[in-house]
Amino acid sequence: MGSIDSTNVAPSTPSIAEFKPLDAEEFRKEAHRMVDFIADYYKNVENYPVLSQVEPGYLRERLPENAPYLPESLDMIINDIQKDIMPGMTNWMSPNFYAFFPATVSSAAFLGEMLSTALNSVGFTWISSPAATELEMIVMDWFAQMLKLPKSFMFSGTGGGVIQNTTSESILCTIIAARERALDKLGQDNIGKLVCYGSDQTHTMFPKTCRLAGIFPSNIRLVPTTAETDFSIAPEVLRKMVEADVAAGLTPLFLCATLGTTSTTATDPVNALAEIANEFDIWIHVDAAYAGSACICPEFRHYLDGIERVDSLSISPHKWFLAYLDCTCLWVKKPQLLLRALTTNPEYLKNKQSELDKVVDFKNWQIATGRKFRALKLWFILRSYGVANLQSHIRSDVAMAKMFEGFVRSDPRFEVVVPRAFSLVCFRLKPFPGSDVEALNKKLLDKLNSTGRVYMTHTIVGGIYMLRLAVGSSLTEERHVRAVWELIKELANDSLKEA
Amino acid sequence: MGSIDSTNVAPSTPSIAEFKPLDAEEFRKEAHRMVDFIADYYKNVENYPVLSQVEPGYLRERLPENAPYLPESLDMIINDIQKDIMPGMTNWMSPNFYAFFPATVSSAAFLGEMLSTALNSVGFTWISSPAATELEMIVMDWFAQMLKLPKSFMFSGTGGGVIQNTTSESILCTIIAARERALDKLGQDNIGKLVCYGSDQTHTMFPKTCRLAGIFPSNIRLVPTTAETDFSIAPEVLRKMVEADVAAGLTPLFLCATLGTTSTTATDPVNALAEIANEFDIWIHVDAAYAGSACICPEFRHYLDGIERVDSLSISPHKWFLAYLDCTCLWVKKPQLLLRALTTNPEYLKNKQSELDKVVDFKNWQIATGRKFRALKLWFILRSYGVANLQSHIRSDVAMAKMFEGFVRSDPRFEVVVPRAFSLVCFRLKPFPGSDVEALNKKLLDKLNSTGRVYMTHTIVGGIYMLRLAVGSSLTEERHVRAVWELIKELANDSLKEA
Repeated sequence: MGSIDSTNVAPSTPSIAEFKPLDAEEFRKEAHRMVDFIADYYKNVENYPVLSQVEPGYLRERLPENAPYLPESLDMIINDIQKDIMPGMTNWMSPNFYAFFPATVSSAAFLGEMLSTALNSVGFTWISSPAATELEMIVMDWFAQMLKLPKSFMFSGTGGGVIQNTTSESILCTIIAARERALDKLGQDNIGKLVCYGSDQTHTMFPKTCRLAGIFPSNIRLVPTTAETDFSIAPEVLRKMVEADVAAGLTPLFLCATLGTTSTTATDPVNALAEIANEFDIWIHVDAAYAGSACICPEFRHYLDGIERVDSLSISPHKWFLAYLDCTCLWVKKPQLLLRALTTNPEYLKNKQSELDKVVDFKNWQIATGRKFRALKLWFILRSYGVANLQSHIRSDVAMAKMFEGFVRSDPRFEVVVPRAFSLVCFRLKPFPGSDVEALNKKLLDKLNSTGRVYMTHTIVGGIYMLRLAVGSSLTEERHVRAVWELIKELANDSLKEA
Repeated sequence: MGSIDSTNVAPSTPSIAEFKPLDAEEFRKEAHRMVDFIADYYKNVENYPVLSQVEPGYLRERLPENAPYLPESLDMIINDIQKDIMPGMTNWMSPNFYAFFPATVSSAAFLGEMLSTALNSVGFTWISSPAATELEMIVMDWFAQMLKLPKSFMFSGTGGGVIQNTTSESILCTIIAARERALDKLGQDNIGKLVCYGSDQTHTMFPKTCRLAGIFPSNIRLVPTTAETDFSIAPEVLRKMVEADVAAGLTPLFLCATLGTTSTTATDPVNALAEIANEFDIWIHVDAAYAGSACICPEFRHYLDGIERVDSLSISPHKWFLAYLDCTCLWVKKPQLLLRALTTNPEYLKNKQSELDKVVDFKNWQIATGRKFRALKLWFILRSYGVANLQSHIRSDVAMAKMFEGFVRSDPRFEVVVPRAFSLVCFRLKPFPGSDVEALNKKLLDKLNSTGRVYMTHTIVGGIYMLRLAVGSSLTEERHVRAVWELIKELANDSLKEA
């Protein structure tokens, strides 16, 4: 883009003053303005309704049917954001957001993300952005060391790691690596024999991902879990399933163990599951999207016991490691199996360094070809806060959840439904004679969310409908958790009176 | 994260002053500082070497082996960026970057990206971020209207569109939608009968994506192309292949046509290919990652002729529509086929609006569950510049390429190897008696890139090694294109003397 003698321009070009999409001084001015807009938003987000209260279709009525032909000013756009966009926001950044899992953020990650966006390097090969590739290798090793992963997952050892978009893409890449290894032996025609295992608590992206990879739907097993194991996989149940599949002539391929399930933060026993997986030559992946970040604290590290026997591990810093979307870290023990499945080598990307095989080309570690310089974001977080503050961050979220758990336990009308392990509390109004306990709790949740003062979500596990309070929005302080408990008690009074 | 009475905190917590990862005023101060850093970078990027000149492994020697235990200051980090990161940057933002395809950017897109990052809403379902979902529907319709797509691709008609990360994910989703539709009829066991078609010029992500989806490698066909059709697919060659596959008892599944191939911007004939695809019930996708953006100009729109007969179309605004990474727009004619293949419905995401089926839940249109509010970026671009400036942007890039093409044609030592259609010029030093023409051109490219004053890449098509000059970095002006031609002539003199 730029200036050019108008005689070279197509005749139908409208007469517009020279268009410069990236003028450094205009960029500076406008970006400063957006920084203030955002800082003000963070300052005031507590005052917005947490859950948006708009009706479906609200926005189409407010916006024009077409893009404008002529430019509109930043003033107009910012005005429309306040008027039309903000009412439709469910404010994940609110300190009173307790739904799903928190999506944590930080000033440091924002700076890293800004710079990564601005540099806009497309790091498919080493040569296309050496700093992006090498910094990613380094921060993946740094993070691995913080988690006390074995050297077999590090570039400074025999493995390595890569930053992916989300857990879904990470698991898709590993299932495909496992599938290709298996089909090399079995022959392509036997794809219908490959079996994948998760549990009924594994995130639904897992069976979806298996299907994407061509695993037959009839060969996707979700091990049933029970309250007896706090909804984690019982190794003996898995073993029986695997043995039955082998006896039926099928080939066990892939097992997804979870640290911190989405419903209740259940934790599958990595070591015991890895023993079975190793015995049957099953690729075992540990999905620690949420709870993995906690393992930088010595008191939580035991959840990773047995990790040295595992094939791959993923953790999403966009969940509990202050990183903004998207950022999922995937470590693999045998990068060559990813490379075997995902490598492309078109002429137009060939270069000396790649051909000498002395460099990492991250396009061969992922689905897409292009990729951002996302390592900057993690590097900013690790350096700006240091291990000490990051541990403190995890611990204070857990402490707030523990405090809330104490509140629930102290009120005889309520119960904690499953044990709290991290920063999520699953609870409900207790059943009492003549009550429809599910309807009662549903009503309570509706009442809570329709105040706009809080957003919480529910789940059903083991047949029990429960409310989830996931502590950890980056702006949440002890006073917010105390206030939400007061609100819950107040609305519970109303609900119980009505019932 | 936040303050909590220290008695609740795990005993091993280091004594650190209360840690706030998101203090609005600190955020404001630091983000302003980063804006200035970035604006200064854009102001000076012309002075940096375009292609990084570091050696593999340069960064590991410079950085510590571990993440720091205690926080480090922003001063230190910014200092290290200048000292350690910048030398390893291949500067895609340089006005002298002519490699691959340009990754175009703009102030407006940066503002949209900042805001999208800052809001950090995770829009898997409508309720989790109504504004994000609805604005995405609206801007996808706006863009469709600018491209004069039929109503069958719009939400205001019978189709719809979604913002994906890259073309790879977009095509993966559509192949899987096509696969599931076919296997519904054929039975899962017949996955080995499904055949996918591209050409030897289709981006290598296409055969990779077919393999990811479980298509047997032996069933991925790359139609050979020749100079006779300027390296686009000859419909009669495709027809013969399809007929042969049908005769062999196979099921033609998916055809990827390209508008603007990566090597030479060849354009497959959409209408003629769609005729064959429709006849054989093949899902036809048009990958217009780069050249699609040009179709907002009436003089380029003819490349989309026949689009009403196509099943899906993808265009990447991060290539030629000023959007920064990542941003790929995917339109589909039958969203229900995507939904059939990609829908998940876990209890913890259930909500009234989704169950009433009155809303779009974009998690069911993509691989991942989570997703950013990326529509903001497109909305900022469309509104800040308007259709008029965006057309002017395309035209001035094309005009600059045309000017360069004229330079090449005016010098008898050079030749334009394939016709220029958009903003890419493919050229080389002509062969002469006794010359090794490939070695000569390789040497010229090496010389050019090792100056640091320009970055260009090569390709080989039809057996011919050629240099690619892709005009369009957002900072490129006519004077840069003139200067690179002077440099090419100067170094060509040297190369020819040596030869």
